[in-house]
Amino acid sequence: MSVTAPAGFVATGVAAGLKSTGALDLALVRNQGPLQNAAAVFTSNRCKANPVLWSEQVIRDGVVSAVVLNSGGANCYTGAQGFQTSHATAEAAAEHLGVSAADVIVCSTGLIGEQLDRAAVTSGVASAAASLVPGREGGLAAAEAIMTTDTHPKQAVVSGDGWAIGGMAKGAGMLAPGLATMLVVITTDAALDSAALDASLRAATRVTFDRLDSDGCMSTNDTVVLLASGASRVTPEADEFALALTDLCRDLAMQLQGDAEGASHDIAIQVTHAVTEDDAVEVARAVARSNLFKAAIFGNDPNWGRVLAAVGTTDARFDPYGIDVAINGVQVCTAGEPDQPRDRVDLTPRATSVVIDLHAGDVSATVLTNDLTHDYVHENSAYAS
Amino acid sequence: MSVTAPAGFVATGVAAGLKSTGALDLALVRNQGPLQNAAAVFTSNRCKANPVLWSEQVIRDGVVSAVVLNSGGANCYTGAQGFQTSHATAEAAAEHLGVSAADVIVCSTGLIGEQLDRAAVTSGVASAAASLVPGREGGLAAAEAIMTTDTHPKQAVVSGDGWAIGGMAKGAGMLAPGLATMLVVITTDAALDSAALDASLRAATRVTFDRLDSDGCMSTNDTVVLLASGASRVTPEADEFALALTDLCRDLAMQLQGDAEGASHDIAIQVTHAVTEDDAVEVARAVARSNLFKAAIFGNDPNWGRVLAAVGTTDARFDPYGIDVAINGVQVCTAGEPDQPRDRVDLTPRATSVVIDLHAGDVSATVLTNDLTHDYVHENSAYAS
Repeated sequence: MSVTAPAGFVATGVAAGLKSTGALDLALVRNQGPLQNAAAVFTSNRCKANPVLWSEQVIRDGVVSAVVLNSGGANCYTGAQGFQTSHATAEAAAEHLGVSAADVIVCSTGLIGEQLDRAAVTSGVASAAASLVPGREGGLAAAEAIMTTDTHPKQAVVSGDGWAIGGMAKGAGMLAPGLATMLVVITTDAALDSAALDASLRAATRVTFDRLDSDGCMSTNDTVVLLASGASRVTPEADEFALALTDLCRDLAMQLQGDAEGASHDIAIQVTHAVTEDDAVEVARAVARSNLFKAAIFGNDPNWGRVLAAVGTTDARFDPYGIDVAINGVQVCTAGEPDQPRDRVDLTPRATSVVIDLHAGDVSATVLTNDLTHDYVHENSAYAS
Repeated sequence: MSVTAPAGFVATGVAAGLKSTGALDLALVRNQGPLQNAAAVFTSNRCKANPVLWSEQVIRDGVVSAVVLNSGGANCYTGAQGFQTSHATAEAAAEHLGVSAADVIVCSTGLIGEQLDRAAVTSGVASAAASLVPGREGGLAAAEAIMTTDTHPKQAVVSGDGWAIGGMAKGAGMLAPGLATMLVVITTDAALDSAALDASLRAATRVTFDRLDSDGCMSTNDTVVLLASGASRVTPEADEFALALTDLCRDLAMQLQGDAEGASHDIAIQVTHAVTEDDAVEVARAVARSNLFKAAIFGNDPNWGRVLAAVGTTDARFDPYGIDVAINGVQVCTAGEPDQPRDRVDLTPRATSVVIDLHAGDVSATVLTNDLTHDYVHENSAYAS
């Protein structure tokens, strides 16, 4: 179960004809209340897709009745015609659900620069509205309908004391920074207002999705939306809810990492003893974006020199000749000199750990990334064809 | 001819045993004067190799008698022992050439984090000092001795009115920003003081090597050194010399681009109508570092959405919905909307042009990069083995 695990939500996925394969390509998630509170975060890319431009307006009042998501086209860089398609999508949902179009979030994913088939989307919305179901079936269909190069649907659930949070995500490529990096819908039956949801969502995404940097590329369409139905009639403590939401976001982020396009290693880059969290994240992200480092990990080569070469491009505070590096538990570099022989590092497991000790402060942070593989190049050189 | 083209220089390359293949791996370039003026620029990576730390001291007084360069090991992150190896290399050259060690630049390239065989390097220097020759033969041997994954030596010559500039370069991977990104030795018989050389070198590298960003990775060892013998007895106008030097650096930079590891496309990303040159370079570099864009070009896919997605991650001044994009002369995007059909773009030639018109100002800049290929992944996943 995912978005339909908490009380008050129904969902579905239908085949609207946007994918040439005939697979599910349009998802609808409806909040049946009693509350319709919501929060959302969007890509920080300045080149935003039309559904993002639409949804940024929708979220302003903190009220969302439904979310429509389509794969098969990003509706990005499609001009006024594309914006009208996002608007028409919301209007169609409003008509069939009896809600206001101004309370319908729209998300799209797929190729940039191609018009979406508006008639196909709106008739897909009509079909979806007629087939909304609660429980496992509806949530799974929705999670499947938003898949692009994902090899499997991503779902997660966490439970509190009398309330629950459920979520679904898509994203296997263009996973990067600056927030969001994918389409994610999270639901809860907790009774929380939109300000509380917003604070929890920003806190959770900051340390989860924002620290997933698979290939350094930031999407134009990324959206994470959190809907609260209040159907449990329980209002959890803010800290308790934020912790549970963070757990759920981390679970989904790790599912995204594990299904990243073509990857053969899931790499956790932990930077320890930084002066600030920003310093730690800057250093970890620089390593996560080094193609040379990522290609070495693909080749099971513990090339720690490429780690330090990437660390040295940052402005973080550290002594460049006082850094330790450990790979999969073997300390290969101590204070900027070779330590354990690199052939002691076993890089055959998919899970890979790189620990960079800056010896500069007392703050740590971890960024999740993947290796650079032949399959990544293959999948991303053939996407449009 | 390359570094031995200008009068007053001799050079050679020898096999010192640093490469397990027995290939040439140590180069020596000597300035016979009458002047021994010089300038140099180094990597802006904070994690600098020992030869860079040594050479930064050497260049301070603007006097350089000789340059020793080795492949087969970067001598980076090798601690005090590694620094002493760079020092011993300069001392060996000083002894055999009858110059001061404080006037000997040392450059190294190869794997990071392994000690260089000091005895092999110093005996190689002795052999090299005994075999220095003028003319084509010496220059070519030196250019071959600094190759790592390069498939051919890189040399260039430009001539002025009674003076000349010659250069050699190595670099096929880890080609990136922040200055230099490779080992380059440039010689001239023009009679110029070190201040004039420094000004010309910084002006030339800023718009050539600094705008070559093959894979986004900045080396720890990059060095560009310019030596002037004054043997022509001609002092050219500063502008004239700077222009010629820029031409030579551009020639070498394009040779490096053309031999980048595993690349199948040489991509020139031109940003036009930016408000400032910094804005133009920032935008072009963001595109040059997008793995999704680079993989698409490898697949001959004119995926302009990935261009705009990268443009949108920058802080440059532009209207995100007012940008034009042309690929190989076909305007695929006008004012943020689809224009010519993408299948009109022919990406089969190696030379690839991307023009991004920001419609924001009147400044242009071009960054050179390469595509992301299977061969890049292969070469860089197997480097240490």
